[in-house]
Formats: sequence, structure tokens, C-alpha cells
Amino acid sequence: MAGKKLSVLPLGGLGEIGKNMTVIEYNGRIVVVDTGLMFPTAEMHGIDLVLPDFSYLRERAEDIEAIVLTHGHEDHVGALPYVIREIGAPPVIYGGLLTISMVRSKLDEHKLADSAPLQELPAGERVQRGPFSLELVHLAHSIPDMRGVLIGTELGSVLMTGDYKFDQTPVDGRPADIPRLAEIGREGLLLLCGDSTNADRPGVAPSESSVGPALLQQFSRCKGRIVVTSFASNIHRVQQVIDAAVKLDRKVALVGRSMRKNYNIASSLGMAEAPSGLFIQPREIEDFPDEKVVVISTGSQGEPLSALRRMANNDHRDVELHSGDTVVFSATPVPGNERAVNETIDRIYEIGATVITARDAPIHASGHGWQEELKLMLNLTKPRHVLPVHGDHKRLRLHAELAHAVGVDPDCVFQGRNGLPLEIDERGARFGEDVHAGTMFVDGLNIGDPDDAALRDRREISADGIFIVVATISSDDGSIVADPEVAFRGVAFLDEADALVDELSDLVEDTLEEAAEAGNRESHLIEEHLHDAIGKFVFQRLRRRPMILPVVVEV
Amino acid sequence: MAGKKLSVLPLGGLGEIGKNMTVIEYNGRIVVVDTGLMFPTAEMHGIDLVLPDFSYLRERAEDIEAIVLTHGHEDHVGALPYVIREIGAPPVIYGGLLTISMVRSKLDEHKLADSAPLQELPAGERVQRGPFSLELVHLAHSIPDMRGVLIGTELGSVLMTGDYKFDQTPVDGRPADIPRLAEIGREGLLLLCGDSTNADRPGVAPSESSVGPALLQQFSRCKGRIVVTSFASNIHRVQQVIDAAVKLDRKVALVGRSMRKNYNIASSLGMAEAPSGLFIQPREIEDFPDEKVVVISTGSQGEPLSALRRMANNDHRDVELHSGDTVVFSATPVPGNERAVNETIDRIYEIGATVITARDAPIHASGHGWQEELKLMLNLTKPRHVLPVHGDHKRLRLHAELAHAVGVDPDCVFQGRNGLPLEIDERGARFGEDVHAGTMFVDGLNIGDPDDAALRDRREISADGIFIVVATISSDDGSIVADPEVAFRGVAFLDEADALVDELSDLVEDTLEEAAEAGNRESHLIEEHLHDAIGKFVFQRLRRRPMILPVVVEV
Repeated sequence: MAGKKLSVLPLGGLGEIGKNMTVIEYNGRIVVVDTGLMFPTAEMHGIDLVLPDFSYLRERAEDIEAIVLTHGHEDHVGALPYVIREIGAPPVIYGGLLTISMVRSKLDEHKLADSAPLQELPAGERVQRGPFSLELVHLAHSIPDMRGVLIGTELGSVLMTGDYKFDQTPVDGRPADIPRLAEIGREGLLLLCGDSTNADRPGVAPSESSVGPALLQQFSRCKGRIVVTSFASNIHRVQQVIDAAVKLDRKVALVGRSMRKNYNIASSLGMAEAPSGLFIQPREIEDFPDEKVVVISTGSQGEPLSALRRMANNDHRDVELHSGDTVVFSATPVPGNERAVNETIDRIYEIGATVITARDAPIHASGHGWQEELKLMLNLTKPRHVLPVHGDHKRLRLHAELAHAVGVDPDCVFQGRNGLPLEIDERGARFGEDVHAGTMFVDGLNIGDPDDAALRDRREISADGIFIVVATISSDDGSIVADPEVAFRGVAFLDEADALVDELSDLVEDTLEEAAEAGNRESHLIEEHLHDAIGKFVFQRLRRRPMILPVVVEV
Repeated sequence: MAGKKLSVLPLGGLGEIGKNMTVIEYNGRIVVVDTGLMFPTAEMHGIDLVLPDFSYLRERAEDIEAIVLTHGHEDHVGALPYVIREIGAPPVIYGGLLTISMVRSKLDEHKLADSAPLQELPAGERVQRGPFSLELVHLAHSIPDMRGVLIGTELGSVLMTGDYKFDQTPVDGRPADIPRLAEIGREGLLLLCGDSTNADRPGVAPSESSVGPALLQQFSRCKGRIVVTSFASNIHRVQQVIDAAVKLDRKVALVGRSMRKNYNIASSLGMAEAPSGLFIQPREIEDFPDEKVVVISTGSQGEPLSALRRMANNDHRDVELHSGDTVVFSATPVPGNERAVNETIDRIYEIGATVITARDAPIHASGHGWQEELKLMLNLTKPRHVLPVHGDHKRLRLHAELAHAVGVDPDCVFQGRNGLPLEIDERGARFGEDVHAGTMFVDGLNIGDPDDAALRDRREISADGIFIVVATISSDDGSIVADPEVAFRGVAFLDEADALVDELSDLVEDTLEEAAEAGNRESHLIEEHLHDAIGKFVFQRLRRRPMILPVVVEV
């Protein structure tokens, strides 16, 4: 064991909410836990997805023993197709049954399912991969088959909790495996990497099964159609909506691609069920009386293309919201989505329909444990070292303070960041040297760096527009052989355009003539002169700095 | 009075939060109440400000008797410079003393102060302008000198509340003028246009003066430097921070341009005060021991260029935040600003400083009355008709329901929208015909339509970038006289660029040759062909639809 070192390197999920990915390394071999993504913000012009920068793994692909997935949410599995495409498939990908089924369906869409060695690892079963023993520990969350990952090495064990809560009455009757967690504590845990998402909320999260009765109570007051929106992957929530609809003798329509897809997967695994004849097709909704229908829809986050937003904007093929409908938001906005959600809600009010949110009634329960649950996890597993993960800087700090509160030695509690490996050996734990980590953007078919020129250019053009000036000069003497062409896009100057273009043409001619007289014949130099002269002129006139793109054509 | 009609036309502030502006019309004459703006969202690429579309007033400029301003907040006065510039100054602009002083300073910056007939109208004094009697009624809000506007006509009176709360212990000891409101009720009020901002909050808003003791309590626990951020216009809040600093024997530095400006105006009017020697300059902050300083800063909304954000990013000339500092957010995020505020807070946590928000302690009080206050206003003024204003559709609806609850005839409660005039005559009230209303964007020196080409182009380019192709052909026979030039900006295609540009050049040549052979010599037709051919090719290769800008130069 002399000189042996365990390293835990978070590539995402620290100092942010999303794109969770952690590299566990021992004796030159690697296990990757989760490969998550984030969704872009409005400032990321045209970017489709945000991935952790996993270039650290590029040269270490051969050393990967396994990828282990805690659960099927996008912020834990969404980057997998890109990881496989960029660095190849690992020898094995483990997860719970639902996780593996959902990931298979996702990889199918990317035409990668055949090459991916997906394998269910039942909770409590232990496998050896290289120097690692791997075991999944059943926990509760807002998706079934949530599993913590216990990674054993000669030096000791690491528990990556993934996302969890200690729900004592989960809908499927399978609470978190507290006995096993206690056992892990007795065996001695070297490091706990715990979910910090709700480290700022005192108390204990409400049980998922408390949501069903609240939904039923709200539904029973509705005279018209009921539209419920929730996360499509929250199978138990969807099940509870279905159960309430059955009790009230209403038909159910699943609307939105991911809602139908996830329900079908869960149903095929026996994790969701409905009496036969309950479901109707979205196109049949308008055929039933309003008071006989419950629609379960995607769009709880106000996504612009979601079914709910389309229904509210009278832009959905099958359903149009109207006065008398009640829209039930059985979800809360993920941080950053507040405005999109509020816009959707207000649009529904504008139509004249009614909205019920989790602020009005207890119709949502978070899937992430609150402070008392984080403390319980710490007390059960008794870790020697703690590295809070899955949270912004605030929540990582608050989670660290909870660890202090339950008696973990403050010197053994670490506030990390992406790219900073926590290294543990026989003498203790400390941060190692920063590794390149950050963000990669998916833009259409490409994966690239957020600082790449394309995105910088888009930012610049989207602020002030672009001027294109084409100057055609003689290759003999640099003289002008055609009138300059001036084009612009995204530049606000309204009525003065013609005059300004004329003046710009004159300016271009002057600049070209000066260059010809000075014997300056290098086109890139002429372009530079044009760039500066036009930029200065435009700023003087418009107080704006659009991008200036001069093109010199020699004939 | 036969045939006489009173019309109330909201140009902004309904179905949205911000840009409040209302046109009151009687007998062909007009009073405008408030001229507010909104701040742009990230989707409004490069737009500086959002104004109500007041083009309705363009041809009616001669009919305006007065503009009346309820208070000095941007969402009630910010569009005034643009209104004056576009349609000229009205005969008079009325407001409370602080409002007029703040607006004068703003118009000064626009070099418009000389042309604007600003005039203080003391609360309770009545003036006659054309067919209107005008009176300001003192109310309480998060800025001093808040005034409702009572507009009398032969047909009856309209009360525009502006923003208000019934604070029984305001910091300046001047609660809302309830006796006058009761009198207005006794006299008979034809229409109440009331603030709906907090129509969703049950109960009564906390008093502004409850914030001071809470701040003092928090401050007294701080060992290091204290940085308080709040709205610069909330003079009473700033005063309470100053008072707490005095009690704790700390110096005070005002940081941020608007913070210093607003304090200076309020101080010059005797509305704010501090013992001499209390203030230090921002550049002196680092000279004093941390435990002897309170910084009052702009940036409570996470504005990217604000003093607080700069301090947090180590980008401020005078102050750098560090571990041991406590940052106190004495404000809540305006809807839409949640992410920017959270980013700022998390950055402060990352530095190692502490953050206290209104969720942790009662260190903020809203300036807008809650449900019981809206009901009190309704009961006091006993309006025959009610038009809720200042709110999104949800809050307008909830405010209307409050009016029903206190006994206003539901047929006399109206849910309006921008551009829809409420018309009242002897027979009653009803909505008239829609008037053009909406949004105007300020973009640098220009004011324009949000749908104008510039913004559409920016949206398109910011999603997928732009390709520029220059083809130089002979004006004699259309033959190619120079190699095509292909430039692109903001297009993500990384490594393949060179190959793609070569292929594009070939494609351009082919297209030009085809055109020449077909005898097609119209350059706009050739450009159209190039546009389509390149667009199709690029989409096939990149699965993206960048803007394609072909330029044909004839030599």
C-alpha cells in the first residue's frame, strides 16, 4: 500500500447546478461516476447543450474500468453520448434498471446503443473492476432506481451519493437502504461525496407520497379540464396523477414526447401502471367533455418548445387551453428558469385559465434531501473525509458546515471546485493540482470550447450587428475597379441608412486611394485600414461598435 | 354633459411588470400619468431600454394638458426623455418634490432639462388644466414623495394610485393620506386604477421602519466589513443603513453612481441626513479597519456592471470583497433578475464572504401593498369602476377578485390590457377599440420597433452565425473575374473550415457559371441563386442555418 493514492476529481457539478461528473482514480485506473449535462442560458447564443469538459479523460480512455450512473436525469447522464463519441465506450456502463433502460433509449437516438456495454447492476451486488469494487446502494429521489455508488479500494471506500432524499414513504415502498448505509459507516468510509442541492433548507423534505392526496384534493375542486405539468422522468409523480384521475373518473392523455417515452419505459419495466382504457390519445382530448379529462404534459420549466407552452400559445396540434381549464404545476422552477415559468403562467392567466402552483398547495416535493437528511447521511456513513458535491458555492459551503455540525473534523471537510482533485493517501487528504476542467458546448453537430471564435463573434454581432464592405481593386495598381459594396445586418440606424451607406462608400474609396498612393498593396493591410476607418466612422455616427468585416477583392 | 366620454388608455404596465404609462382623455384633451420604462431581457440582443409604444400620442401632442408623475422610479418616469424628444414637451410636468428633482437630474443628462416645464405640485393642492382638475394625494412607497393622482372631470374622477402601501410607520413619519382617500370615497369616485404588484400576497406588507432594527441586529453580529446593497432610490432604506452604521460607530461609503446621486438629491432636499464626518470616499475604504466600515452599494439586482458585481469579481477600482466581509442584500430580486442575483450571491460565497438575504432575516420590506392594503384602498375610495393596473395578467386577475370580495359590482371591474381603452360615459363603462400599443426599443441613439429588421437579423445571426460570399463577375458576360471570397463569423465548424470554404468556392463558381450560361445577368437574381445554393449546402454539411449574405460585384 505504500505510495498508494486515491484521487477524486470532479469535472462538473461543483460551483454550479448541473453537469455532474466525477473521476475516481486509483493505481492508474479510473471509474467515472455520472456524465451529466446542463442546459444553456440565453447568453449562450445558439448553443444546444452544455457539457463538462472531459478532455482529462481523452488520454486516459484506456484506463477507464467503468462508467457508473446514479440515475437517469439529464444532469447525471446527458453527456454520455458525447463522452462515448469523443473518447469511445468504456468496458462497461453500470446503473439501476430504469437508468440503464432510459440511457439505452437515449443512446439509440444517437445511434450509439450497439456500441455501449450497458449493464444493470442490482443494488447490493458487488463487482470487481480492476482495483475497484463497485456496489450500488438504493436511495430515494424524484426518479425510480436511484443509486448511490460505493467504490472500494485497498485504501478505503468512497461513497458518491448521487441525488437522494430519505423518503420514509416513497411511492414504490422502497425507502433508501439505511441499513446498508449504517453498515458502510461501521465498515469505515474514507470519503463521502454528498448531494448539496438542498443544503440551504432546514428540516426534512416532504415525502413524495404526500403529493398524491394534495393533487387529488386540488383536482376534486376543478370543474373543467385539468392539465398537470411535471418532470417527465418523475414516474411516481405521473403515477400519482394517474391514480387521482382514476379516482375522479377522468381519462388521461400524456402529451409531450418525453412524457410518453418515459411512461412507456417505466410501464414496460412494471414501474407504472394504469387501468386499461384509461389513456386517450392527445388528438382525442377535444372529443371528451372537459370535466372528464386530465392531461399530463411536459413544460413545467417553461421550455419554449414544450407541449404546455404550445398549448398556452394556441400552437399545439391537439390541445388548446381555454377559460375553465386548470393548469397544475407539480414542479418548481429549476434556478434560472423562473422567468420562463412565470411567462408561461402569466400567459395561462391571460387566456383566462386557472393556475395552481406549489406555492398554492403542497403539490410538489423536492427529490433532494434537506438539511436534516444530509446530517442523517453523514451520521449513518460516518465518513473520515467529506467533499460536498452537486451544488453552487453557497450550498457546498452550507453542506460543509453541516458536516462540521455533526462532528466531522473540519480539517477533513473540503470545499472543492471543478478540476481540483482531492487526493487521499495513508497520511490524509488534500487537494492536488488543478486539472483542466470547465465547459464544452454542443452546437449542432459540433462540440467546442465556449471561448471559441464562433461564440465570441455571435456575442459581438448580437450586440451591435455587422457591417460588410467589399472593395474591388485592380491587382495591377490597386486602383478601384468597381463601386464599393456596403452591406449590414443587425445594425440599428433606421432612416439614415442610405445616407450613411453613401458616406461609407466615399470613405472606402478615400481609404483605397490613400492606400494606392502610398503603394500599399497587401490586401490584409488594406483590409486593416478599411476596418479601422469604417469602425471609427460608424462609432462617431451611431455610437455603436458593430463588427466590421472588410473584404478586398483583387481583379 | 350629453355625449361626454372619459377614456382611460393604458399604454404600458398591464400584463407585465414595468413601463407604466396611462393616457386619460376627456373632451379631446389629454393628461398622461407616468412615462415608465422596462429593462431588456437577454433575448433582446443589444437593446438598451424598453419603452411603451406611445405613438398614439404622436398626433395628439397638441392635446396634452399635462404629464403627471406619481414617483421617481424608472418604471414610472424613465421614458420621459424619449417622450419629450419624440413628441415634444407638454405644457407642464407635475410631480412631488423629490420626483421633480430626480427627473430634472435625468433630463439634464439628456440635455432636455431646459425645455421641460417641471413643476412641483404639493399634495392636496388642486390645479385646473383644460377640462381636468388635478390633485396629488400623498401615499407611501419605497421612495419618498409618492403621490396618487386624482383627475377630476365633469363626468367624475379617476384615481391613479401609482405604487403604494399603507405603511403606518413610514420612516419619514408621513403615512398615506387616508383621510383624503376617505374623502374621495365620500365625494364619489368614478374609477380606481390601482397598483396590483402584490395582489398575490395575503395580509399587510411589513413597515419600512421594521427594516432598520433588523439591519442593526444583523450588522451587530458582523466582525468584518459590511456591504449593504439596495435600490439607490430607496432613500429611507439608505437612511436606515446610515443610522445603523452610526450606532455601531462605523464609517459609511456610498459606492455606485446612482447611489451617490440619489443620496445627494435627497440630502439637498433635507430628506436624508448623516452626522458630519460619517462618510468616507470609496477610495478610502481600504484605509479603514474592516470592522469600521459599512459600504452601501448598487447592484442588488445582480446588474453586470454594478458596483457590487464588480467588487465581487475583483473588477472595482476601489473595493475588493474578501473572506470576512458580509454582504447584506436589503432587496429582493425583481422577477426576471433571479439568475443574475443568484450568480452574484454565489460568486460572493466563492470568495469566502458571507451573504445575508431577505430570506435569512427581515431586512427588506416591499414598497407595494399586499392584499389587505389593496382591499383597504378599495373600501376607502369606494370606486364605481375598477381597472387594476401595474401587474402581469395573474396579478390583474387577483386584484379584480379582491375588488369583487369587497363588494364592487363584478360588471364594473375590468381586466384590461395595454392599448385597450376603458371608456366611461353616463351610461357606464366598457372597453373601446384597441389602439396601437406595445413596445419600443432604445438601441444606442435610436428608438425602434422590436420587430425591426436589425433585431431579427441579430437573433438569426446570434443563433447560427453568418456566411458572406463575394462573387466578382464581368459586367460584359457574367463570367467570373476573381476567385470567390468566402468569409464567416459565428459559425461553429471548427476543424473542417478550410475544406468547407474550398467546397463553397467551388459551389459559388458552379452557380455563377450556370447563371452566365443561362444568360442570367440580374445581380439580385444571381444573389438569390447563390443564397439558396449555399444555404442548402451549409445545412447539409453543418445541420445549421446561418444567415447567408451573397454579394455580387460587377466589374
